[in-house]
Amino acid sequence: MTRFALTVEYDGRPFAGWQRQSVSPSVQAAIEAAILAATGEEVAVHSAGRTDAGVHATAMRAHVDIARDIAPFRLSEAINAKLRPAPVAILECMIVPDDWHARFSCIGRSYEYRIVLRRAPLTWERGLAWRVPKGLDAEAMAEGAARLIGRHDFTTFRSAHCQANSPLRTLDRLDVVRTGDRLSVFASARSFLHHQVRSMVGCLALVGQRKWSADDLADALAAKNRTRLGLNAPPDGLFFIGATYPD
Amino acid sequence: MTRFALTVEYDGRPFAGWQRQSVSPSVQAAIEAAILAATGEEVAVHSAGRTDAGVHATAMRAHVDIARDIAPFRLSEAINAKLRPAPVAILECMIVPDDWHARFSCIGRSYEYRIVLRRAPLTWERGLAWRVPKGLDAEAMAEGAARLIGRHDFTTFRSAHCQANSPLRTLDRLDVVRTGDRLSVFASARSFLHHQVRSMVGCLALVGQRKWSADDLADALAAKNRTRLGLNAPPDGLFFIGATYPD
Repeated sequence: MTRFALTVEYDGRPFAGWQRQSVSPSVQAAIEAAILAATGEEVAVHSAGRTDAGVHATAMRAHVDIARDIAPFRLSEAINAKLRPAPVAILECMIVPDDWHARFSCIGRSYEYRIVLRRAPLTWERGLAWRVPKGLDAEAMAEGAARLIGRHDFTTFRSAHCQANSPLRTLDRLDVVRTGDRLSVFASARSFLHHQVRSMVGCLALVGQRKWSADDLADALAAKNRTRLGLNAPPDGLFFIGATYPD
Repeated sequence: MTRFALTVEYDGRPFAGWQRQSVSPSVQAAIEAAILAATGEEVAVHSAGRTDAGVHATAMRAHVDIARDIAPFRLSEAINAKLRPAPVAILECMIVPDDWHARFSCIGRSYEYRIVLRRAPLTWERGLAWRVPKGLDAEAMAEGAARLIGRHDFTTFRSAHCQANSPLRTLDRLDVVRTGDRLSVFASARSFLHHQVRSMVGCLALVGQRKWSADDLADALAAKNRTRLGLNAPPDGLFFIGATYPD
């Protein structure tokens, strides 16, 4: 058995999410089917994160064990060939030690949430960004974001379906970057609760629209109560953009 | 009659191009049908440029004459509502003088051509960029681009279907901008020949791959012969990004 680490890009629109499901198409099932077609091996692919339906990735990290002797380059070429026409691609493939685990070895996860500030419907970006019709004050959002940085009980920003044992998370980065009518929120943490990024972005948008102050956001966090959530942003704008590992 | 200038964004993938055709879907026909549905008026929409099948626009300019008394904001809202689900959107709408013509008043047109430099297939950008598997030397491309700037007979870079009277064009700008694995070519001129941007980009890619030198490119231009064209880039990466008008 050789363990391969994969860097995976995907368009989340046609999928019910990363995780394999009984009926709906998933990114994981698409990759596993491609590996079966390419190598004849029935495998389980493990990932750094399990994105929701409609959420995308520019650099999801994953691993898979393959019995057959095959070079990383040939493996990724074969998987990509079999993935067609699914909008999933292996960008990188390398051999890693047997104890390297895409999920359990991961010490950092990063997301970008993309917002387009305009009234008109999206065209070629439909499903790839959240359209917010009214302007957002990026400075106010940055001020609000600062109140979420650090170790907190993020219960307010956690989906009812979250399976994590603890609502405590340490948010390392929550940056708001605006360029013209585009606004991105970059979030990094060791790990996130289910819906945490979308929930933080939704509330930051309220701050950007001046419906909430930074204090309102801090109060919602301190309440540790999901009913205090102001807004959950749609999956469209969310991209998993990176996972970090020791060394 | 009131003349309205429109700024239009569209995803070219589902269309046979801008121009109305007897059978195939076109951007022009989609907008005209939306205006008919919104106002009850059968109109002809005129644009600054007629993009090909699969070519996109972030800011195509167009105009239309409407008999009914309607405010620009209400008109664009009504058109956008009727355009759904076509990936076409009116971004701006304003009243202009009756002699303002989206095509004939236009004194400058700009395109961006987007390239993604990688071997793996595209996922969420499929149809929105040209994937070039081998690296491109952006500096060499910029050197080549400089040889095309100015007033020339662009016959080499002109489609056999081009209907322009003259192959002479003045290329004002041809910039190559690389950021990581993304490369954009920005082209501006008063007007372009049919396929000119895609043909210039195709040949610039040959220069970037070191298959052609800047001199080879200059020789191809000087030959004024379509058979000397090295490569025509696919429509996928091409975006009409702006038209300029006097004041």
